[in-house]
Amino acid sequence: MSNNKIPKIIGASLPNMPWEDRPSDCADAVWRSAKNPVIGRYEIPISNSIYNSAAVPFGDGFAGVFRVDDKSKNFRLHVGKSMDGYKWDIRSEPIEFDRGCILEPFIEGYDPRVVKLDDRYYVTWCDSYHGPLIGIAYTYDFEKFHQLEYPFMPCCRNGVLFPRKIGGKYAMLNRPADMGMTAFGDIFYLESPDMKYWGNCKYVMGPETRSWQHVKVGAGPIPIETTEGWLLIYHGVWLNVNGYNYCMGAAILDIDEPWKIKYRTKPYLLAPSETYEMVGDVPNVIFPCASLHDADTGRIAIYYGAADTVTGMAFTKLDILVDFIKSNSL
Amino acid sequence: MSNNKIPKIIGASLPNMPWEDRPSDCADAVWRSAKNPVIGRYEIPISNSIYNSAAVPFGDGFAGVFRVDDKSKNFRLHVGKSMDGYKWDIRSEPIEFDRGCILEPFIEGYDPRVVKLDDRYYVTWCDSYHGPLIGIAYTYDFEKFHQLEYPFMPCCRNGVLFPRKIGGKYAMLNRPADMGMTAFGDIFYLESPDMKYWGNCKYVMGPETRSWQHVKVGAGPIPIETTEGWLLIYHGVWLNVNGYNYCMGAAILDIDEPWKIKYRTKPYLLAPSETYEMVGDVPNVIFPCASLHDADTGRIAIYYGAADTVTGMAFTKLDILVDFIKSNSL
Amino acid sequence: MSNNKIPKIIGASLPNMPWEDRPSDCADAVWRSAKNPVIGRYEIPISNSIYNSAAVPFGDGFAGVFRVDDKSKNFRLHVGKSMDGYKWDIRSEPIEFDRGCILEPFIEGYDPRVVKLDDRYYVTWCDSYHGPLIGIAYTYDFEKFHQLEYPFMPCCRNGVLFPRKIGGKYAMLNRPADMGMTAFGDIFYLESPDMKYWGNCKYVMGPETRSWQHVKVGAGPIPIETTEGWLLIYHGVWLNVNGYNYCMGAAILDIDEPWKIKYRTKPYLLAPSETYEMVGDVPNVIFPCASLHDADTGRIAIYYGAADTVTGMAFTKLDILVDFIKSNSL
Amino acid sequence: MSNNKIPKIIGASLPNMPWEDRPSDCADAVWRSAKNPVIGRYEIPISNSIYNSAAVPFGDGFAGVFRVDDKSKNFRLHVGKSMDGYKWDIRSEPIEFDRGCILEPFIEGYDPRVVKLDDRYYVTWCDSYHGPLIGIAYTYDFEKFHQLEYPFMPCCRNGVLFPRKIGGKYAMLNRPADMGMTAFGDIFYLESPDMKYWGNCKYVMGPETRSWQHVKVGAGPIPIETTEGWLLIYHGVWLNVNGYNYCMGAAILDIDEPWKIKYRTKPYLLAPSETYEMVGDVPNVIFPCASLHDADTGRIAIYYGAADTVTGMAFTKLDILVDFIKSNSL
Amino acid sequence: MSNNKIPKIIGASLPNMPWEDRPSDCADAVWRSAKNPVIGRYEIPISNSIYNSAAVPFGDGFAGVFRVDDKSKNFRLHVGKSMDGYKWDIRSEPIEFDRGCILEPFIEGYDPRVVKLDDRYYVTWCDSYHGPLIGIAYTYDFEKFHQLEYPFMPCCRNGVLFPRKIGGKYAMLNRPADMGMTAFGDIFYLESPDMKYWGNCKYVMGPETRSWQHVKVGAGPIPIETTEGWLLIYHGVWLNVNGYNYCMGAAILDIDEPWKIKYRTKPYLLAPSETYEMVGDVPNVIFPCASLHDADTGRIAIYYGAADTVTGMAFTKLDILVDFIKSNSL
Amino acid sequence: MSNNKIPKIIGASLPNMPWEDRPSDCADAVWRSAKNPVIGRYEIPISNSIYNSAAVPFGDGFAGVFRVDDKSKNFRLHVGKSMDGYKWDIRSEPIEFDRGCILEPFIEGYDPRVVKLDDRYYVTWCDSYHGPLIGIAYTYDFEKFHQLEYPFMPCCRNGVLFPRKIGGKYAMLNRPADMGMTAFGDIFYLESPDMKYWGNCKYVMGPETRSWQHVKVGAGPIPIETTEGWLLIYHGVWLNVNGYNYCMGAAILDIDEPWKIKYRTKPYLLAPSETYEMVGDVPNVIFPCASLHDADTGRIAIYYGAADTVTGMAFTKLDILVDFIKSNSL
Repeated sequence: MSNNKIPKIIGASLPNMPWEDRPSDCADAVWRSAKNPVIGRYEIPISNSIYNSAAVPFGDGFAGVFRVDDKSKNFRLHVGKSMDGYKWDIRSEPIEFDRGCILEPFIEGYDPRVVKLDDRYYVTWCDSYHGPLIGIAYTYDFEKFHQLEYPFMPCCRNGVLFPRKIGGKYAMLNRPADMGMTAFGDIFYLESPDMKYWGNCKYVMGPETRSWQHVKVGAGPIPIETTEGWLLIYHGVWLNVNGYNYCMGAAILDIDEPWKIKYRTKPYLLAPSETYEMVGDVPNVIFPCASLHDADTGRIAIYYGAADTVTGMAFTKLDILVDFIKSNSL
Repeated sequence: MSNNKIPKIIGASLPNMPWEDRPSDCADAVWRSAKNPVIGRYEIPISNSIYNSAAVPFGDGFAGVFRVDDKSKNFRLHVGKSMDGYKWDIRSEPIEFDRGCILEPFIEGYDPRVVKLDDRYYVTWCDSYHGPLIGIAYTYDFEKFHQLEYPFMPCCRNGVLFPRKIGGKYAMLNRPADMGMTAFGDIFYLESPDMKYWGNCKYVMGPETRSWQHVKVGAGPIPIETTEGWLLIYHGVWLNVNGYNYCMGAAILDIDEPWKIKYRTKPYLLAPSETYEMVGDVPNVIFPCASLHDADTGRIAIYYGAADTVTGMAFTKLDILVDFIKSNSL
Repeated sequence: MSNNKIPKIIGASLPNMPWEDRPSDCADAVWRSAKNPVIGRYEIPISNSIYNSAAVPFGDGFAGVFRVDDKSKNFRLHVGKSMDGYKWDIRSEPIEFDRGCILEPFIEGYDPRVVKLDDRYYVTWCDSYHGPLIGIAYTYDFEKFHQLEYPFMPCCRNGVLFPRKIGGKYAMLNRPADMGMTAFGDIFYLESPDMKYWGNCKYVMGPETRSWQHVKVGAGPIPIETTEGWLLIYHGVWLNVNGYNYCMGAAILDIDEPWKIKYRTKPYLLAPSETYEMVGDVPNVIFPCASLHDADTGRIAIYYGAADTVTGMAFTKLDILVDFIKSNSL
Repeated sequence: MSNNKIPKIIGASLPNMPWEDRPSDCADAVWRSAKNPVIGRYEIPISNSIYNSAAVPFGDGFAGVFRVDDKSKNFRLHVGKSMDGYKWDIRSEPIEFDRGCILEPFIEGYDPRVVKLDDRYYVTWCDSYHGPLIGIAYTYDFEKFHQLEYPFMPCCRNGVLFPRKIGGKYAMLNRPADMGMTAFGDIFYLESPDMKYWGNCKYVMGPETRSWQHVKVGAGPIPIETTEGWLLIYHGVWLNVNGYNYCMGAAILDIDEPWKIKYRTKPYLLAPSETYEMVGDVPNVIFPCASLHDADTGRIAIYYGAADTVTGMAFTKLDILVDFIKSNSL
Repeated sequence: MSNNKIPKIIGASLPNMPWEDRPSDCADAVWRSAKNPVIGRYEIPISNSIYNSAAVPFGDGFAGVFRVDDKSKNFRLHVGKSMDGYKWDIRSEPIEFDRGCILEPFIEGYDPRVVKLDDRYYVTWCDSYHGPLIGIAYTYDFEKFHQLEYPFMPCCRNGVLFPRKIGGKYAMLNRPADMGMTAFGDIFYLESPDMKYWGNCKYVMGPETRSWQHVKVGAGPIPIETTEGWLLIYHGVWLNVNGYNYCMGAAILDIDEPWKIKYRTKPYLLAPSETYEMVGDVPNVIFPCASLHDADTGRIAIYYGAADTVTGMAFTKLDILVDFIKSNSL
Repeated sequence: MSNNKIPKIIGASLPNMPWEDRPSDCADAVWRSAKNPVIGRYEIPISNSIYNSAAVPFGDGFAGVFRVDDKSKNFRLHVGKSMDGYKWDIRSEPIEFDRGCILEPFIEGYDPRVVKLDDRYYVTWCDSYHGPLIGIAYTYDFEKFHQLEYPFMPCCRNGVLFPRKIGGKYAMLNRPADMGMTAFGDIFYLESPDMKYWGNCKYVMGPETRSWQHVKVGAGPIPIETTEGWLLIYHGVWLNVNGYNYCMGAAILDIDEPWKIKYRTKPYLLAPSETYEMVGDVPNVIFPCASLHDADTGRIAIYYGAADTVTGMAFTKLDILVDFIKSNSL
């Protein structure tokens, strides 16, 4: 079922990306940063927690959009900058979106993703417009952000753009939600000719019974283009008597028809087992939202929210991860 | 707040539409047919119930798409034909949609709406594709039905097309749902350049606290174009210790920006109070799905499902109804 | 356990009270009026339903405060007058309370009780002030109603005053509730020196497992003073897979310490079994709120809401009812 | 898949069984008695409702065990006798079981089944012993009833014995439950060498998604032995926004390995559609518990509870029913 | 909106109160004790946890009433004494209240508050009398405690007395509850002429959407009289997929009409972020119940329960806290 | 109530059992191992967690059956061997049961118990066969495991065999469950002549209101035969706003009629208070499943799952434990 070629990332070099080799005593396909949590909950004065955040290469370093819950427990999006991907200078003030023709005021934003696409950076996040739904904005400079009109109705979360057009169309993964905690959720694929109108909704994948991903699944970082297909890192949720546990998994999607799953992890890649993942505002959550990767080496650094409180990093290499996914596929 | 001109329906004459004058002892803005229920639950051999159904003028009579729950309690869509709008010849076999590039089989369909638009008849309904969502198909002849790809993700119900383009775009009212009984629901407006890709989602209206419409609302028949704006007949839901009660209301939307409510009924137009509305598979439901109307006289005939079991009809005249809505607006 | 004296109502004569003898084929302790429902749902133009209402002798006839849910499903209190207790002239406009120092506007009122006490008529009802709670007002003439400040916090319902001071204090039965449908509820006794400050809360009675009253109980009409003790007619609630069923029962409370139950019906007195009780806005509800009675004859007429839609009447005689309660006591 | 032989009941003649021919305008496989409801809710003085009851041939007429909910809403089992199967003389006093070594008192009993087996009549019902579970007793004369020790733990309901040993063992169908309303439930098969110890539990059948039987199923009358296999009439449950609807279906089980389903109805046989089935203490319930049948003619009379309030009868003939099941099998 | 005078506590000197200066690296308005948790869960042999407890100056040290859940998980109130406010000598035996005319036995008590008022110490707590409700007792010496009759019905929690009469009346803050976990709750104001009868209920404040206090709020320590108004420290609750998080906030109430909020914290003052607050019997709980304060210096020491397991202390100064509340008011 | 004889374990010597003396600063009846957790979550490559596991003396060391949740969150049973009872060699592959005549495949197994009985070792566990239920198998060598047919229907959990026949019958404790998290549960006693057919179900014990065991209880390790009766260590569950807390208790059952409780702990023996018990996949769980004991010394070692993640050990001596149970009995 596997081919013999070494899988490669299709994309740019990123030699200055954050990186830590796999510890010698670790046999896992994904390993944590020794510096975790790399961003603490009280990093800026107003913050209650900083997590579920997005980073991209920008200039000679990195830029990001961060979920900052302030001490009022408002969910806000803040810009951050970093030279090494570890230490982040997160702005004290949340992003003020140019809302264009959306007349109603911005209410809240959380769980952002960022992608370089065409000539600009697109940000998607979970917005609040008579229910949770995907907000989309773009920026050229991480200073001014222009929000597009809402393309979708509520209720949805975890809208993740692909980093290029597919079949001549913009493409997004998205997930239904409800008005509350949402005890269900499949991943769907949508396409658009113009980033404005969307359609051709296709089912991609859903929960698996009797597993760590039996309640719901949601796309994580921007999919990574590889010679094997699109590498999708995602979160899956398991319910027990004391609540929901969020873990990290991965899938490889067909490069041209990404709604077709080629491989998908049966075991998780990472489950809450460090204290900062098991203890916090929402115990037992690992929620990946972004990755940095280097096409030359296959190195991948994953940013993930931990316990809805802090931000952690984990590392993998494409060949290790692809091998694991293929060898442990559903 | 009201103007003095007599409101008129903008549209075609329909002199052969079903009609009954308001009974002399009735002062209500909407009145029931004396022949109710006009379609019984066991009208065709396989049926358990026939309700929440759609009718349009067709040929020298009427055609319709009917929700028929068969005796297995599968929800199916059936074509019907009628010369007078009262007696319907409903086919024994459900519609078999040409599903185009949707590979997965048709699972179920319910709560259809039908509208003449451009050169064809569009049918929308609640479909089932990894959750409830709007299905869209078109037919020229009520023989062959071509289903479009799903434009939206689940979960949504009550997708209702406008009978013409607005601002150069196709337009639809739609309503979020969840995987089950859905205890919430606002009405949203979406537009499309091509019936394929949709966007520019705008909030139209939601529930009102302490009222017959405090749980959720959903668009009913195809909006009727009038000199006052779009006449939208809709259902609203009230929750009590013994369940949900569905009633009928109406609103007038701005003709060019239909997401703007000009007037909306504070009291209901019709509430379950006849036995066939209060007793049946789902007690206490009035669910309007279609109307016939005559521009010459302002006559409007409304088809509504009763107790999720049978189909009833109610009548009104545009001037009476508009006057009522304006005089009793929220 | 029973004594031999014939029980008597302690109170006034009321020879003009509505009355119907027990049908010859009926052996029940309480029997329905042949004219039921005595008040229909659409008796006044704005009404959706008229039920759970209170009547007292007034002038040479009767006055009452009626729960009228209007067609917006707002719950309102309306004054009504009657000469025979059957035909009621219910005002079109709801009562406008003089709210005194309560600054916030009146939101809704339902399930009223009325009692003549000292020199005036007191009305209690379920009001809405950041949750459901007992409202208290008085009137001399059923024209002007003066609302007192709220003595209790939410959440409570079914506040019923005794018709005279007990132990030198005003006395009320009251029942806890929650913000919604309230799946629990015991009856408590509270006393007040001045109708303003209340205290000395005592438990009176609660639900009984495996019975028609296993979910909650609530006081109904104003307790009737008798030689046996206070006769309390109340409602009890039974839950099944399809909802709550409300039935009528009765208890005899100690005359000086009414928190002590002397007898209480194990079987119900009346359960929903007529169509107008089983079918309506809320199926399967009998909810007694008021009684008229004649000390000379022991006749008692009970007004009760049916299916939260219409008003019914039932009759009994004190000796029959007391004998039944004693013979069928828990 | 079907054979050509006319199916026959294997069993005794019962020429005096109640019977009504299929109405000429009816094409259904099962039809109602024109005398429905054959037993009313207030048939005996203490009763609130009489339903879900069991009848067998006895002497030169019929005997039965009836579920009588008294006016306290206690669930009790009462003996009844009848000469024609229509008019029943139901005793005023509930059965007092000889409880043997079960020290705790009898709490409640409901939904009885009765079968002639060996030299006696076995009664099974839903008992209450720290939760709902199957009670088993036997009688020779419908006067004295000897209850066996509880063989099973709670929670289970709908325990139905086969009318003879299978594979040398007594056999029972049984269904899991929970402490409340039970929103799930498959049918299982259990066997016993001695009516005391049970084991070898095997799965028989469960709910079907998107159907009238999607919530739970439960065995109804004692299975009828036929040349086609065991004929099992059962109930299935459908959930909607306003509650549970109970319908009647049937299956044919392998004669030697009854846990193997040969055929099973995809559509229902009977759904609540008469007023006495749709309106009552628990609306929309048809619950079959017993049948009488005549091997000579293939006639079958089914007793079923309606709306948890009254008892109805329905009729079928074996050949009609078997043909329907085979032609409409899942 | 703010005045320029330095705010002062109106009250007694308390030079021996526990105190720790704000750490130099801390900019928060409230800071934790370096000795936290000051009372551990197993401090006395029978205890499972000691938290949500009340302390007052007494003699030349301090006395308190402590919530001690014993190892049976019974909730009990125990007297404790301390010389420094840190080390507490908590009695092994729970308080035995003189219950006066309350005939039923004491069941459980939790979340006590204590206040010096008139010539005695009043204790209020959450009692259990057919539901949760406020118990009131007084003591002169922390030896004998006299419980008053219950003034209120269930269900309520967090009854907190003001430390002096207001407008000539005793005053209390109180909060509705239900029979279980209570997912709602506003704070109300009640007054009494005599500590026996209560009335004139007024709404004070409720939850705020999209915040750390969106589920419910409840009064904490006895309000502190200041030149700015009554300083009320309270708890607010936030709900996420894994449960409820309890945080600490504060408000300033009008000195004469305390139901009027002058200022109220939009951000929290303290949220669970130390291990002993995030991990324990009930994770993520900070629940303030008492404070000590010194009018001379404006020092305030707050006792709070942590994770429903142990007791922590936090400190602030009036001027710092008032400035924070005013600068960060809703 | 207690007798004066020193209680003794009736059974074999086990001098090599794991043992640690009670720490000098500990007064509890049960104390933890200083080496806890003795088995970590990632002890074998595929494991996510290892807990709720069973050990018995075997050969010159110990054998066990372990609940291993793999990284897919499949629940599996694995054999382990140990020389000292601390260090376990757990096999990488789950047990493959010889399923005999059960045709359907093994789905999952968890919470095993093991007992030497007659000439073999019986394993019971929670299996999955159309719902959770008790699986039973036997082995002679911990290599081959022969699964018996399912004796019981779903839903049940915590089936625990007695180590010898009682009254000539095999005996088991068992507990009802539902399809999900099961918020109820009493312990019942069942007996069998042949390990195949079971009956004579008797109630043993249930939850206690207002205690650590108010939700449900379940048998833990195989009961230990003593001169005082059967020593049953069990778990009880307490519910709070943030979930379920599982604690350990013990009871002494009558030696001949084990459904009779002689003593039962009112306080718990052990509650989650160490980090590895409070933090993990399911916070706040102590779940005892096995014990080793030495008749000569009365030493008892208890294995328990902690936080559904790791395995801990605790120790007690029979005399200490019996004295505690008697002195602290309900």
